[in-house]
Amino acid sequence: MERVAVIGSSMTQFGQRDGWILDLLAEAGLACLDDAGVDAADVDHLYVSNMASGEFEGQTGIMNALAQDIDATPAYTQRIDQTSSSGGAGIYAAWQSIASGASDMTLLVGGEKMTHRTTGESTDVIASLTHPVEYKQGVTLPSFAGLTARHYLERFDAPRESLAKVAVKNHANGVHNPHAQFQKEVDLETVLESPIVADPLRLYDFCPITDGSAALMLCPESVAQEYTDDYVVISGIDGATDTHVVHEREDPTIMGGVVESGERAYEMSGRDPDDIDVAELHDMFTILEFLQMEGLGFAEHGEAWKLVEEGETERDGELPINTSGGLKSKGHPLGASGVAQGVEIYEQLMGEAGDRQVEAEVGLCCNVGGFGNCVITTIMEAAQ
Amino acid sequence: MERVAVIGSSMTQFGQRDGWILDLLAEAGLACLDDAGVDAADVDHLYVSNMASGEFEGQTGIMNALAQDIDATPAYTQRIDQTSSSGGAGIYAAWQSIASGASDMTLLVGGEKMTHRTTGESTDVIASLTHPVEYKQGVTLPSFAGLTARHYLERFDAPRESLAKVAVKNHANGVHNPHAQFQKEVDLETVLESPIVADPLRLYDFCPITDGSAALMLCPESVAQEYTDDYVVISGIDGATDTHVVHEREDPTIMGGVVESGERAYEMSGRDPDDIDVAELHDMFTILEFLQMEGLGFAEHGEAWKLVEEGETERDGELPINTSGGLKSKGHPLGASGVAQGVEIYEQLMGEAGDRQVEAEVGLCCNVGGFGNCVITTIMEAAQ
Repeated sequence: MERVAVIGSSMTQFGQRDGWILDLLAEAGLACLDDAGVDAADVDHLYVSNMASGEFEGQTGIMNALAQDIDATPAYTQRIDQTSSSGGAGIYAAWQSIASGASDMTLLVGGEKMTHRTTGESTDVIASLTHPVEYKQGVTLPSFAGLTARHYLERFDAPRESLAKVAVKNHANGVHNPHAQFQKEVDLETVLESPIVADPLRLYDFCPITDGSAALMLCPESVAQEYTDDYVVISGIDGATDTHVVHEREDPTIMGGVVESGERAYEMSGRDPDDIDVAELHDMFTILEFLQMEGLGFAEHGEAWKLVEEGETERDGELPINTSGGLKSKGHPLGASGVAQGVEIYEQLMGEAGDRQVEAEVGLCCNVGGFGNCVITTIMEAAQ
Repeated sequence: MERVAVIGSSMTQFGQRDGWILDLLAEAGLACLDDAGVDAADVDHLYVSNMASGEFEGQTGIMNALAQDIDATPAYTQRIDQTSSSGGAGIYAAWQSIASGASDMTLLVGGEKMTHRTTGESTDVIASLTHPVEYKQGVTLPSFAGLTARHYLERFDAPRESLAKVAVKNHANGVHNPHAQFQKEVDLETVLESPIVADPLRLYDFCPITDGSAALMLCPESVAQEYTDDYVVISGIDGATDTHVVHEREDPTIMGGVVESGERAYEMSGRDPDDIDVAELHDMFTILEFLQMEGLGFAEHGEAWKLVEEGETERDGELPINTSGGLKSKGHPLGASGVAQGVEIYEQLMGEAGDRQVEAEVGLCCNVGGFGNCVITTIMEAAQ
């Protein structure tokens, strides 16, 4: 089967933005067409990753509106929702559209507009993705994160500082990302003394609420070669669920969806964890970066914190993680985040990552829906 | 490329149902597993077609909840939204999952729970799929239908009764569908004297608001043959958008998305309109059945009404349309409708349609999002 290529990317400024969701999607969509050198008329499928424009703005049908806005009509459109991993699910859907032969050119645009709502309203929308048996008791995603973090730290004798160092590292990376919501460093003391949200986790252990959009252009490799000599291929991609009711999992420090989707993506690509040069992990909460590092085989179970302590996941370390700044500093517009992970890996593999550039031939993204309720892992490689 | 097969189907009772969306999805999902003889553990991808569970019930993440409810974890899940054509988009997504090799067994479940909300609340949610430039002026979907119907009748000198006869026919079919919301005939006089909704269209020109769910099981043909000798293949499928702002279309009686998606589906399957033995069209409003008949080549432009007048689209006619009862009498639970169209065609081709059975080797579904904003056309054939 022909390989699926990525030939263009874009992302808007992340943060607090004016306008509505369509402005953000159109901005990223048009920039991606421009980056790829593709005419809108040549787009066969236009996929929009978005969790909740209906709840956030009372507007649905945004994929059809976008088609007209960027002049892509009569392209086929679809909205992809996989909660906070809608972006990763969008990459998987776009991959399927190309690999199946349904489309020869798929533009994927992920986006969310959230900051016009209060933090309470936004977190209520997000909480609706969990099972009522849990959220009616108040056990929302930040609560799971706090409980898991406490368990992890005690069970594996990990210092509280190791979690804070994830935030410090990702903020240090975000300084070099002109699209990041927070382009400023934070020190260990600031993280450790920030207000408690879900003990032991504090404000700086959490990603912010964000507006933003990101886009990728996918096509068969043979089509890619008509446009450019330099492109990236998706060599492995898969997704998997874990129990939707989080408290029914056997071990709260193991995310089954991470493990399963990672194993399948490695198998499909013929790669193993040692081959990965750079990774974007879903650091909605600092503790999640540990769980993904372990689930994806970058560290033994219970030992991710040691790699962080040793600086191995920093930009000059053995395996740079979240060079983009991660959700923590770049921001987390739900439907955009998984696409933006893909944008960062694409730019790293293309040598277009500016001051964040690391040496990388093979990269990985892991996009987590809910508290690992569904996870998509994608492996990308510079074309040879 | 190997053909994509359908090996099982199910649908719940459509109408006013107790419980919440998950009950409906699980009921159809489990029944489809049973019908196909497939273990939940063998499902690779579980796709849920649903437009607005967040808006209708304040619940998102339903695809992940369903995976656990039917014991399909760790199957990969995704929610597919293409407004009122979410079901057709789900068939297309499921087709892509199989044709791309990403999945060897995809369970597609479409559903919507609406009747617990008032009619005003439900139509507000549906209206959110149109462009604000139109819906802020009150030009919602029923208004478009009324305006288009008036124009059609005057321009093509068609009698008002021809529209009413669509409702009469579809209700006559629904009598024989045990899952239909309305299993009762209506006569011409009842339709013509029902209350005006959007002149010249009256209450019986419109589909009802409905709770319900439907499901299909898709796999590669080689896998299908491990389960059964009798199955159906999807020989053609594609989707296309028209302008999202409806008043910008050149001719209100031509739905570009119907024409485009139909042409591509015919080309893919090597079929033409004459080959179609039975069709499910999206009769959300009676006028839409005319527009789809013409857009799909079953009638010349402006002449669909003549076929209806001549009874050619009745069960014993040349081309039976909406043998299921259509959206008009079976009901229209948004995310379920396109899947339920597929269920009807599957059952007709399998000879499992009971009192509704017609002679058919090749069938077609046309699922319309919004007012033709995006349309998916699917051609299915009995396996040979």
